[in-house]
Amino acid sequence: MDFSIPKGMRDFPPDEMRKREYVMSVVKTVFEKYGFLPFETPAIEFQDTLKNKYGEEEKLIWQFEDMGGRKVALRYDLTVPLARYMAMNRNMPKPFKRYQIGRVWRYDQPQKGRYREFWQCDIDSLGSKNSIADAEIIAVVYESLIKLGFKSFEIKINNRKLMDEIYKAIGIPEKEIRDVYVSVDKYDKLGVNGVKKELQKRKIDSKLIEKVLELIQINGKSDYVIKRLIPFVKTMESKIALSETKELFGYLKEFGIEEKYFSFDLSLARGLDYYTSFVFETFVTEPKIGSITGGGRYDELIRLFSGEDVPATGTSLGIERIIDVMTELNMFNLSKSNVKIFVASAKDETRGKALEIATQLRNEGMNIDIDIMGRKLSKQFEYAANLDVLYVIIVGPKDLENERITLRNMENGKETKVEIKNLVEVLKLS
Amino acid sequence: MDFSIPKGMRDFPPDEMRKREYVMSVVKTVFEKYGFLPFETPAIEFQDTLKNKYGEEEKLIWQFEDMGGRKVALRYDLTVPLARYMAMNRNMPKPFKRYQIGRVWRYDQPQKGRYREFWQCDIDSLGSKNSIADAEIIAVVYESLIKLGFKSFEIKINNRKLMDEIYKAIGIPEKEIRDVYVSVDKYDKLGVNGVKKELQKRKIDSKLIEKVLELIQINGKSDYVIKRLIPFVKTMESKIALSETKELFGYLKEFGIEEKYFSFDLSLARGLDYYTSFVFETFVTEPKIGSITGGGRYDELIRLFSGEDVPATGTSLGIERIIDVMTELNMFNLSKSNVKIFVASAKDETRGKALEIATQLRNEGMNIDIDIMGRKLSKQFEYAANLDVLYVIIVGPKDLENERITLRNMENGKETKVEIKNLVEVLKLS
Repeated sequence: MDFSIPKGMRDFPPDEMRKREYVMSVVKTVFEKYGFLPFETPAIEFQDTLKNKYGEEEKLIWQFEDMGGRKVALRYDLTVPLARYMAMNRNMPKPFKRYQIGRVWRYDQPQKGRYREFWQCDIDSLGSKNSIADAEIIAVVYESLIKLGFKSFEIKINNRKLMDEIYKAIGIPEKEIRDVYVSVDKYDKLGVNGVKKELQKRKIDSKLIEKVLELIQINGKSDYVIKRLIPFVKTMESKIALSETKELFGYLKEFGIEEKYFSFDLSLARGLDYYTSFVFETFVTEPKIGSITGGGRYDELIRLFSGEDVPATGTSLGIERIIDVMTELNMFNLSKSNVKIFVASAKDETRGKALEIATQLRNEGMNIDIDIMGRKLSKQFEYAANLDVLYVIIVGPKDLENERITLRNMENGKETKVEIKNLVEVLKLS
Repeated sequence: MDFSIPKGMRDFPPDEMRKREYVMSVVKTVFEKYGFLPFETPAIEFQDTLKNKYGEEEKLIWQFEDMGGRKVALRYDLTVPLARYMAMNRNMPKPFKRYQIGRVWRYDQPQKGRYREFWQCDIDSLGSKNSIADAEIIAVVYESLIKLGFKSFEIKINNRKLMDEIYKAIGIPEKEIRDVYVSVDKYDKLGVNGVKKELQKRKIDSKLIEKVLELIQINGKSDYVIKRLIPFVKTMESKIALSETKELFGYLKEFGIEEKYFSFDLSLARGLDYYTSFVFETFVTEPKIGSITGGGRYDELIRLFSGEDVPATGTSLGIERIIDVMTELNMFNLSKSNVKIFVASAKDETRGKALEIATQLRNEGMNIDIDIMGRKLSKQFEYAANLDVLYVIIVGPKDLENERITLRNMENGKETKVEIKNLVEVLKLS
């Protein structure tokens, strides 16, 4: 009898789950603070819904036939199902600001940090063309990370519409722009020379390559980058895109984001096909783990479903990576349970009284655990210690004769006798 | 372009999600109060893991091949994956008390209230043979329902081991006992005559049928049912089973469950194969919707995986049905968002100041939404009303000249002028 779970799947024991629940509850609180509302879609979508949305990544969609022969797939992300929903519900009042946290599946080769089933956490804002909507998304990312305890991170921002115009202006043929993005997207991993080689492989003109390389190395404070961009911005389209970008950076400050936390980075491309203008990603300086959030504006995705434009912007918070980083940087400070008090029984004949006391304390709203194994005191202590309780109440026959119990402080081992009639009050004051 | 979702799947818009999140957060709080810890398993299991566990229901398992040809399935419930996990992690400290809330899939014919994808919510306690563990499970069910606001429900309890012994004692051949359970399980739906017909179809001896029918109509307060059972309890095995049952009912009172909320009901059988002694289900008197929780003791399930016995007891809370009942009985009293204040801008030139005020209030920890559509005031009010906000702050040019804003109480429509420097304090006091 040898049972296991399929490749790329994971079980989450309580300690892992407590981390996940903590992260989710912190970010949810921030999402709700900004008026984002919860939303869910099914795990299973029709294959047709997911097709032609993810570019090169499409091959990772986990597809199968249901028992009725229908071509279905496990959802690949939370964005395309949202777009499908919007197309099915066109009269939804706008803006529609929603968050969604849930499993997605990718039939990829599992490796360290990469699974076939993992959780995504998305916020999206639908209906507004205004860059204040993008700024709001970035502000929520910022506050989420701050509330989780992150101290050193950088939200990199770029505008693909602006880059499109600049690439066109420097002479890159329109049909090659997508190739340029795919190569530039690897800058973070491969460096300048890596991108150069990629562009050469794609047979981009060598003079243009030099200009692309010059551009993608421009990054920093928005004012500085904007100044460096002026020589490249000549067409009306690029002027409009730059002005929208300036506007976005202005909003970020008004949303109260400290300037050291964001930058304008012309190397940022993002792999997915569906982004139409702003893109943003968050990097932590330590450990080297790639981006922990990523998103952007995708004004044309919903049109693929409904034929109707719905402006949209949003981001994914990579909660799997966020949890990995927080674990590595020792940022979690969680107890092993929410139980603060364990009621132990010293002898079998005192178990009834121990349960009675536990019930009384629970009725006062306290989180209480008890022994359900019929074990001796030392084992009960072991179990209680594993729950990180603050106090153990020891119910023993001698104490009971005097209508009291022994209260043990688990931090310092100090024991105090407490009269049962005063117990609730004593614990409430502790 | 016509996009839909597969049969039996559902999208959950914010209003639905807020109900779900509310129910989940209430029950989680109760689970944690009793020392149950969060846990998760993958959506996808090997088919072999799920086989031979569910009896007749096995045909509903949603199975498919992954792209590598492996025979996998979507999880059918949360109990079998837990048993599989325990078999893979035999050294897990006991008791292991866990809760798990998540999607499961059944390839069933969808109909009102029955979906191919739905949420289950389980608590299980592994490691203890003692009936105090069963009582604890029932106590958590009880407190969860009370905390959700249920006022009239009944937790029906039976003991399959006891019934086994009694059925044997009255002369039912051992191999027919399972058939009797399957028939008796329909008592709630079909009544006495229905069960009679079922038993006749299964060719049970007519004298025995009469005895079974007499038995399954016995239910009520535990003391009463135990008295009625005495004539049937003659073998040592049945005496032991009855004494365990008495013990359970004793514990329930010690856990503080009011007697009107539970009963001993000899008709309760439960369909699933794996229960070994206590079974319990909760029924609401209104509406007629079947059971809203169901579980029991399954001491032999884990052995199917590991060859090793691990005593286990637990229950499912049918959160889908619970949400339906609470909706029907108008038990939800939820606002449409957690945002309490909307900052509106009367004119385009005051938008900057409105955002600044919103940021200032968010920095004070308040939940604030703003206009991101560039809309006129009346539309902003409409959106704010849809969020159920308590106040709208109106930022207009005239007020700004006097360094103040207009604060509108959305309940009574009353408007007050507030100086901006006093705004935080005024709102904190409101």
